Amino acid sequence: MFDVSEIRRDFPILSREVNGKPLVYLDNGASAQKPQAVIDAVTRGYAEEYANVHRGLHYLSNLATEKYEAVRGITARFLGAKDEEEIVFTSGTTEGINLVAYSWAMPRFEPGDEIVLSVMEHHANIVPWHFLRERQGVVLKWVDVDETGALDPQKVIDAIGPKTKLVAVTQLSNVLGTVVDVKTICHAAREMGVPVLVDGSQGAVHMPVDVEDIGCDFYAITGHKLYGPSGSGAIFIRKERLAEMRPFMGGGDMIREVHKDCVTYADPPMKFEAGTPGIVQQIGMGAALEYLMSLGMENVAAHEAQIAAYAGSRLSGLNWLQVQGNAPGKAAIFSFTLDGAAHAHDVSTILDKKGVAVRAGHHCAGPLMDHLGLSATCRASFALYNTEAEVDALVDALELAHELFA
Amino acid sequence: MFDVSEIRRDFPILSREVNGKPLVYLDNGASAQKPQAVIDAVTRGYAEEYANVHRGLHYLSNLATEKYEAVRGITARFLGAKDEEEIVFTSGTTEGINLVAYSWAMPRFEPGDEIVLSVMEHHANIVPWHFLRERQGVVLKWVDVDETGALDPQKVIDAIGPKTKLVAVTQLSNVLGTVVDVKTICHAAREMGVPVLVDGSQGAVHMPVDVEDIGCDFYAITGHKLYGPSGSGAIFIRKERLAEMRPFMGGGDMIREVHKDCVTYADPPMKFEAGTPGIVQQIGMGAALEYLMSLGMENVAAHEAQIAAYAGSRLSGLNWLQVQGNAPGKAAIFSFTLDGAAHAHDVSTILDKKGVAVRAGHHCAGPLMDHLGLSATCRASFALYNTEAEVDALVDALELAHELFA
Repeated sequence: MFDVSEIRRDFPILSREVNGKPLVYLDNGASAQKPQAVIDAVTRGYAEEYANVHRGLHYLSNLATEKYEAVRGITARFLGAKDEEEIVFTSGTTEGINLVAYSWAMPRFEPGDEIVLSVMEHHANIVPWHFLRERQGVVLKWVDVDETGALDPQKVIDAIGPKTKLVAVTQLSNVLGTVVDVKTICHAAREMGVPVLVDGSQGAVHMPVDVEDIGCDFYAITGHKLYGPSGSGAIFIRKERLAEMRPFMGGGDMIREVHKDCVTYADPPMKFEAGTPGIVQQIGMGAALEYLMSLGMENVAAHEAQIAAYAGSRLSGLNWLQVQGNAPGKAAIFSFTLDGAAHAHDVSTILDKKGVAVRAGHHCAGPLMDHLGLSATCRASFALYNTEAEVDALVDALELAHELFA
Repeated sequence: MFDVSEIRRDFPILSREVNGKPLVYLDNGASAQKPQAVIDAVTRGYAEEYANVHRGLHYLSNLATEKYEAVRGITARFLGAKDEEEIVFTSGTTEGINLVAYSWAMPRFEPGDEIVLSVMEHHANIVPWHFLRERQGVVLKWVDVDETGALDPQKVIDAIGPKTKLVAVTQLSNVLGTVVDVKTICHAAREMGVPVLVDGSQGAVHMPVDVEDIGCDFYAITGHKLYGPSGSGAIFIRKERLAEMRPFMGGGDMIREVHKDCVTYADPPMKFEAGTPGIVQQIGMGAALEYLMSLGMENVAAHEAQIAAYAGSRLSGLNWLQVQGNAPGKAAIFSFTLDGAAHAHDVSTILDKKGVAVRAGHHCAGPLMDHLGLSATCRASFALYNTEAEVDALVDALELAHELFA
């Protein structure tokens, strides 16, 4: 039973006020708040159980190592990976995708090789590929979304040609809320021998994920959007791809032997985890994923679908407001503009005065903004702890903003 | 006034027991424990003041951004950097040195170009340069230490030739405790037009640092060794070098504009900080550096010098134990082996039974181990909160180990 008022009590920050009003936190697409279980895991990690991992032989080091390494299995379970050795820890999706770009793509892509991307990718899933374009002549092939913001998987599949070396696509647009049928894309791409990277930064937050069912080669997540600590994250990398990758960062822990004239590397996943890792934040991410699995991602998705339906209906009643993207089954992420030339930043400032936290800007999605012909939107992005009453608070604040700017 | 018993009360973990004995934590070279001020900054960061930084326009985002960005100035002050824009945030020294390798060295080094290193570098300051050797034919030139473990700065300077493009050297050996006269090296290298990277992972923990006085081009630190959170860190990069660097990781925050066919980058330091950063752990690192500055690094150094002298004298009284490295002015880091063929790992396990946490292994310093002709040592590494009584506890536990293995 998913009881949102009970769940809200798990998140201490939700009971605070902002500008004298109860906090209505609708900036979850940027980063989610943390349940007490995560905060406690972090505090305990530092106050009672802290040491460096892997290389110690004393009690605290063994304890920290055990807790830290357990998160690999938790993450594998959360993502449906068969083998926890396919989970590489990162500081977030950005590092995960850069790892793929530097370790897998850079040494194997030739000038003229193509990467297929959707136009609604986040900069984290664009800029690493721009590096390959700038530095070694790789070609980026963009697939547009339709007028509802939906991405037809067949259009992605049709964009795959003989020079395509990778498809890199989000599972859920951080701007439009569009859910992408990545499974259809992955299965077709696999038939053609083309690996697929799925940016799961948003997807894994809002729906159950099973990387085996999806059939992707790479699936990147970021802990701070999953109710975990900042600087935590992981990427699922299929065994065959792991075997093709050279190291990314060099340092301790990722080597077998280092001499003056030679170096040998550890096996994956350690090969890709250089130096002292984000010990306590990964332990905190483990607590966050356990928390989500205890709620049940199907239940999270069902609750958010209800919020999405309610928010969609309330916002569509405002004839001076344009929601960007209304693809079928879209998630509870609403980007919008207001008539009357009010700049998105001014709107968000007004909302903030009423305690309503939304984001304004390009949302790290330049090509999508170009496609929409906009420079900025406001974005209200909902989480498992948001309520219909908070949708009402958003609408009330928007009505005030509309009055002020009309 | 530096009162160690008062200081110990700032660190909650130091009052815990391990294996029924009071914890004697001498694994500080691997990672240091955290004062309550750091733990509180982290807890508050998540429970009361959390949001993503830089791109928000609401109260919590502005608050988090202000706290996060203030750490840049704190770090500049801690390191003696003139301008906080010369501080790039990282997840630790490993990422810092890899940033220099990928962004500065990789695009400008030609086959046959040389990097001068000391034999006592940590793998974090070796493996990124091995990548350049493996991938683009760069030559590594190694400078040995003398029989005391001292590094003659003139030998480093003499190793600089017309093909030398970089000197990469630690300020303080994590195995031997040797302090390196990096200032003399930097000033001579600058005369020859050769940039110097100083690995400050250990140095910044044990002595006052002034990068302007040292005259280095790069100075990397890691937060978790500086009593801050895991996954935090920074690197000082001199303005002229920053201007020569291309981006490392691609993603949000490090760009100015992203379109389908082009991308422009933000100015340094943001150019090198892709994606959502380690917000709360950097805020925690700020609290740690403030804590250190409030104690005074000269006072920390004076206290540790006293511990080093006492430990050196006690350990030298054990004629069945060999300390590695006795360079003049060495820091309170003691690597040692025991007669009687006891393996370092077995020794550390015995010590752990008495509550004494030390590390055993190669300490991520393969070339130094080759130089010493050893495969592993035990290492007791002291911190600002350690006491002479803890040196005695170490010696008592060592005597027990000696009896067991004799």
